Amino acid sequence: MQWIGEPKTDVGVIERRFDVSSDGRIVPGLLWTPDAAPGPRPLVLIGHGGSLHKRVAYVVHLARHLVRRHGYAAAAIDGPNHGDRRPDGGRDPMLVFSEFPAEWSRPASTDEMVADWQATLDALQKCSDVGDGTVGYWGLSMGAIYGLPFVAAEPRVQVAVLGLLGLVGPTRERLEADARTLTCPVLFLQQWDDELFKRQPVLDLFDAIASPDKRLHVQPGLHAAVPPEEFQHSVDFLVKHLAP
Amino acid sequence: MQWIGEPKTDVGVIERRFDVSSDGRIVPGLLWTPDAAPGPRPLVLIGHGGSLHKRVAYVVHLARHLVRRHGYAAAAIDGPNHGDRRPDGGRDPMLVFSEFPAEWSRPASTDEMVADWQATLDALQKCSDVGDGTVGYWGLSMGAIYGLPFVAAEPRVQVAVLGLLGLVGPTRERLEADARTLTCPVLFLQQWDDELFKRQPVLDLFDAIASPDKRLHVQPGLHAAVPPEEFQHSVDFLVKHLAP
Repeated sequence: MQWIGEPKTDVGVIERRFDVSSDGRIVPGLLWTPDAAPGPRPLVLIGHGGSLHKRVAYVVHLARHLVRRHGYAAAAIDGPNHGDRRPDGGRDPMLVFSEFPAEWSRPASTDEMVADWQATLDALQKCSDVGDGTVGYWGLSMGAIYGLPFVAAEPRVQVAVLGLLGLVGPTRERLEADARTLTCPVLFLQQWDDELFKRQPVLDLFDAIASPDKRLHVQPGLHAAVPPEEFQHSVDFLVKHLAP
Repeated sequence: MQWIGEPKTDVGVIERRFDVSSDGRIVPGLLWTPDAAPGPRPLVLIGHGGSLHKRVAYVVHLARHLVRRHGYAAAAIDGPNHGDRRPDGGRDPMLVFSEFPAEWSRPASTDEMVADWQATLDALQKCSDVGDGTVGYWGLSMGAIYGLPFVAAEPRVQVAVLGLLGLVGPTRERLEADARTLTCPVLFLQQWDDELFKRQPVLDLFDAIASPDKRLHVQPGLHAAVPPEEFQHSVDFLVKHLAP
């Protein structure tokens, strides 16, 4: 694990940029922790949506909220061919979006991202102000495309917020198979008027999740219009299961 | 409005049994208010499920919670051919359940229950410790069969928790038409493994609700297995919209 640049502190939250090595890939990430609070704490891993990157506003907002209000650690990494993994830094969302179908179709894409999250978690748990406390995952849309298989593969993750995804696309069989192995508590979010994921395949994915403790929250609106209420439910749900 | 028997006070909550007259029908009800707290306050009307009655445990629990934690008033009335509306007092749930299809099929059943709730609300708002404050409605299953048309007809109701119901049964066309006129914020609950209401008709009813501010919460389990988490979400949702 390599720290990049200087830590930034803002209203009690330290943000640190890091790189982690995973099977020869460099995985760029961000870690948020409380200022001047050593020792282990719950950790929430946040997967951003397609075309975006690890420092997109809602990721930072969620991470800072978990740190400031609950004393947690939070971390995000760039998705495959997103953000600082790209030579251009991934700052043109339409370009990144247009290239995502090819990435999603690449046979190793999911396995590599699962390995990248695992390498990141290994490295973070060695940080003295993260430690090996409880771990949660939060990721919608592309954050669920890769996050659901990661949560299914990783017993250290004890609770997950997933959603904005259905049993469609090149990895739909993998998603369904992995959903059927999930055991941890899951909050699944659906946008009722989602223009990218139709209703029935989303309901089918929720249905496939094997966790006995799962719930679906549906809100009106387009794909990206998840309301503040559901961000708050997300935090409440994570905290209920991770609280120190 | 006629008070029946003596008020009962238990840990800060007064429970009063009343009868209201509605188009010649006697409507038996219960009112819960804070002890020794005069003046107007938010009111939540609670519709019980089929085969049950106004003093079933979850109704009393919800009412007492609203009174004790939030200082609200809460009231419940027996449904048509339920509880104290019946000569036998409605204490045999299987007998009451077996007679409900005929009641639900009776053409005037919904209009009468809407009128009964309106007469009850008129009477309650004249009580000095209820008054004409904000009004919410909470009702699942049969409490939604009659509650959705009541909320659609009654502009005094500003927020509703509904659910465990789909576009099926003798009043499905009425339910759909009324759903399309709803405007207030709605939390709709669905049990994913509901043995009485299949998934698609329930989703169709949620879809028909015209309120721009609506959300669906889905949980695994049978019809009657609504988890405590959703009762808490119900209360949070009502309080968000009714808070004094």
